[in-house]
Amino acid sequence: MKAQAIGYGMGKKDFEHANCVRAFLGESEGKREAVTKLECNLDDMTGEEIGFAIEQLFEAGAKDVYTQPIGMKKSRPAVLLSVICLPGDADRLAEVVMKHTTTLGIRRQDMSRYVLERRMETVTTAFGDIRIKRAAGMGVERSKPEYDDVAALAREHGVSLETIRKGLT
Amino acid sequence: MKAQAIGYGMGKKDFEHANCVRAFLGESEGKREAVTKLECNLDDMTGEEIGFAIEQLFEAGAKDVYTQPIGMKKSRPAVLLSVICLPGDADRLAEVVMKHTTTLGIRRQDMSRYVLERRMETVTTAFGDIRIKRAAGMGVERSKPEYDDVAALAREHGVSLETIRKGLT
Amino acid sequence: MKAQAIGYGMGKKDFEHANCVRAFLGESEGKREAVTKLECNLDDMTGEEIGFAIEQLFEAGAKDVYTQPIGMKKSRPAVLLSVICLPGDADRLAEVVMKHTTTLGIRRQDMSRYVLERRMETVTTAFGDIRIKRAAGMGVERSKPEYDDVAALAREHGVSLETIRKGLT
Amino acid sequence: MKAQAIGYGMGKKDFEHANCVRAFLGESEGKREAVTKLECNLDDMTGEEIGFAIEQLFEAGAKDVYTQPIGMKKSRPAVLLSVICLPGDADRLAEVVMKHTTTLGIRRQDMSRYVLERRMETVTTAFGDIRIKRAAGMGVERSKPEYDDVAALAREHGVSLETIRKGLT
Amino acid sequence: MKAQAIGYGMGKKDFEHANCVRAFLGESEGKREAVTKLECNLDDMTGEEIGFAIEQLFEAGAKDVYTQPIGMKKSRPAVLLSVICLPGDADRLAEVVMKHTTTLGIRRQDMSRYVLERRMETVTTAFGDIRIKRAAGMGVERSKPEYDDVAALAREHGVSLETIRKGLT
Amino acid sequence: MKAQAIGYGMGKKDFEHANCVRAFLGESEGKREAVTKLECNLDDMTGEEIGFAIEQLFEAGAKDVYTQPIGMKKSRPAVLLSVICLPGDADRLAEVVMKHTTTLGIRRQDMSRYVLERRMETVTTAFGDIRIKRAAGMGVERSKPEYDDVAALAREHGVSLETIRKGLT
Repeated sequence: MKAQAIGYGMGKKDFEHANCVRAFLGESEGKREAVTKLECNLDDMTGEEIGFAIEQLFEAGAKDVYTQPIGMKKSRPAVLLSVICLPGDADRLAEVVMKHTTTLGIRRQDMSRYVLERRMETVTTAFGDIRIKRAAGMGVERSKPEYDDVAALAREHGVSLETIRKGLT
Repeated sequence: MKAQAIGYGMGKKDFEHANCVRAFLGESEGKREAVTKLECNLDDMTGEEIGFAIEQLFEAGAKDVYTQPIGMKKSRPAVLLSVICLPGDADRLAEVVMKHTTTLGIRRQDMSRYVLERRMETVTTAFGDIRIKRAAGMGVERSKPEYDDVAALAREHGVSLETIRKGLT
Repeated sequence: MKAQAIGYGMGKKDFEHANCVRAFLGESEGKREAVTKLECNLDDMTGEEIGFAIEQLFEAGAKDVYTQPIGMKKSRPAVLLSVICLPGDADRLAEVVMKHTTTLGIRRQDMSRYVLERRMETVTTAFGDIRIKRAAGMGVERSKPEYDDVAALAREHGVSLETIRKGLT
Repeated sequence: MKAQAIGYGMGKKDFEHANCVRAFLGESEGKREAVTKLECNLDDMTGEEIGFAIEQLFEAGAKDVYTQPIGMKKSRPAVLLSVICLPGDADRLAEVVMKHTTTLGIRRQDMSRYVLERRMETVTTAFGDIRIKRAAGMGVERSKPEYDDVAALAREHGVSLETIRKGLT
Repeated sequence: MKAQAIGYGMGKKDFEHANCVRAFLGESEGKREAVTKLECNLDDMTGEEIGFAIEQLFEAGAKDVYTQPIGMKKSRPAVLLSVICLPGDADRLAEVVMKHTTTLGIRRQDMSRYVLERRMETVTTAFGDIRIKRAAGMGVERSKPEYDDVAALAREHGVSLETIRKGLT
Repeated sequence: MKAQAIGYGMGKKDFEHANCVRAFLGESEGKREAVTKLECNLDDMTGEEIGFAIEQLFEAGAKDVYTQPIGMKKSRPAVLLSVICLPGDADRLAEVVMKHTTTLGIRRQDMSRYVLERRMETVTTAFGDIRIKRAAGMGVERSKPEYDDVAALAREHGVSLETIRKGLT
């Protein structure tokens, strides 16, 4: 991998944001892509409702959605909801957050993300087929059986995840 | 919804950073405003002292202050303190953080925030007056009884929040 | 230190459970007292409402009330609410929990607690009077300025807790 | 409310432990039932695997399963897994925990639980039928629309939970 | 699996508490042993100091020590410290907690623990020797390379834990 | 306090990104330096393995590494790992994260940090020498005994941290 030489300009018109991200890429040795994080603090919503909002956000195309426990004023245990998405999806997903949560404000951070290249393969085991996710780049080569496949076979055969994974070696 | 042309000033002239924020706004379809997050990791401060710092930060004009549990080196359970504020208040609030915490470094992120327009109304119930916070924009219309009013009436009448809220319908 | 003979009554006659607690005390070398923990999982209540319930529980005589973040089914971030109280107050406080939360079940554990003997003293400083809480027993002697006094003086003089505490030495 | 005489059997004869639980019931003024909590610390299992174990524990009849973040030695962020079940199911569920987790030890606490009496009703709204869960006892009367029904209708109509709930009043 | 007759002594004579524990064992189908949990809420101690207390508790013979984030009154982010130990060590460890923390009260719960039988074996790999911890009982047979050995080899060879573990198959 | 003109180099020539950071500095009244945060969500890694990755990241030159509990899809309790580093170290540390974790993507945020000036002094006490860390700037002057020294003396003398610290006054 090599650092990439990419020209861009910032105090100019055109698409400021895109230029900015291109600069990021220029200085990285790994492959980087632009991502956006949306986040909001929720102290007037129940866990049940937050679970539903998470489901809706995944359906609407969020790359990842996760929650963190936070403590807020007046001794309130609350939740920080974070949504990771493509920058181009951020406005649309912010509307989904507004629709399914009680927040009045959603913070947005545009950032970059180092990523590995991914490739899927399928392996046949005594229990059934399992996809293997292979990832490479930035000096590493890793592989991992796809959780959903392992879990489906564990459920089908009434055994533990471990038992299914042992069938792979 | 359409991209909005929003003029705003940060009390500074036109250098790179301000341009950057304006660019964000240009590409959004909802209304966005600039906000700043200050954060620091605290592993040499007690919960008692952090509670006091939070109180002081709200008094100094922070829009929101919250804590998150973090795990640090040497098996230390610690706290990440976050302060959300107007960009123009960040330097001043960073000084308040320095005064009331033990941190030697405060991270600062300038970002934007999608916001709904808000409006207050007052409703009279059998228990007393309750303000209703109405929010609109980005495809939603929501309303919510103001917690402080509901709580005050619940305390006054010795009943639950639920009982007070039922008086609203 | 020696095992202590401690007589105490729970206002009931001699059935199994009470014997059990007395046995605990018999085998301890420090002073132990009986306490009860009430706890419930809350996934259909907001942080705002939980903050109110905590306030009500302290007013009703709970010795301590605290929350912990928990993860529940269906990806719900929820809260475990715990109340520490005297065994004789448990039934009454369980009713307060039922009144101010949404739970349908409250778990109760009767246990013991090692305690130090406490004593208050007052010290006069340049900023004002501060109570010192002294604790002794089980091989230790400790003292600590009362937080509420230190905080009150810090607010009054517009300084940090640290500044007030330094006036003590 | 008065202490209630409650007869129940754990399918065992009269040894110490059972007496103990019965004593709890005798001294309570609300209705209490016996429950058991199983818990283990997990620092050598992934979140993915824990999610699977939780699913298996619910299928095996656990009344509730939840996780809490804990910090363990050597700066390890770990998970405390708790299972709430009937005392008579504890041995069987401990085996399920052993099968689907990596733990070598499961702590067991037998305790009691204050419970409200529950009753289901069905209400017809413009969006569809919704069951209402009513709970009574210990000085309270509460009701709540069943989350699963509200969520199913929200998904079907593409609206928020709030919109469905408003159809109830 | 069958209920097991297990003789064990706590170095005390036959009072209520010991009987109670023996009753637990009688009704279990797996092997159970008695354990004690000590816990205290810490809101006036720093993470740094808690890390030190944890270290001291392990040295004093605690079987396990862990922390959980809790929220306490006045918006304080605090820590629940738990110590798992043999019942016979509880008084002594409670003194260590008193010495190295700021708590004035330590809750104690005596409970039982389902355990698997453990056995160590050593395997020679291309990277070096690794102990394998085998556990059996309650319907499962599991094994796991000892973390400390894997970590030591990973440090020595400058590779990941995964690389060392792959050498085992 | 006044805005400060600060020259610093990132080992790169003058491209846009550095300008951007310098702009930050220009608008601040305290001293600010550039820092980078790397973060990734881990739901397929154990606490044990995360503890090892943290150790490796500190060795590789991270300024700080910490973890936060997060809840992810499918009821998975997971961990958010954050690494704070110099911007010039970010690419290299991202490779360390890729080597020692299972993540396929690492988010990167470039931000600034308010910092105090630090200075070390040594004080001799009855127990031994203790370094005092002094920090000044942004309106505050603080000092704190270096934890590692206090802890080393506490271990050596078999006393609490408190006892060692009392020897300082």
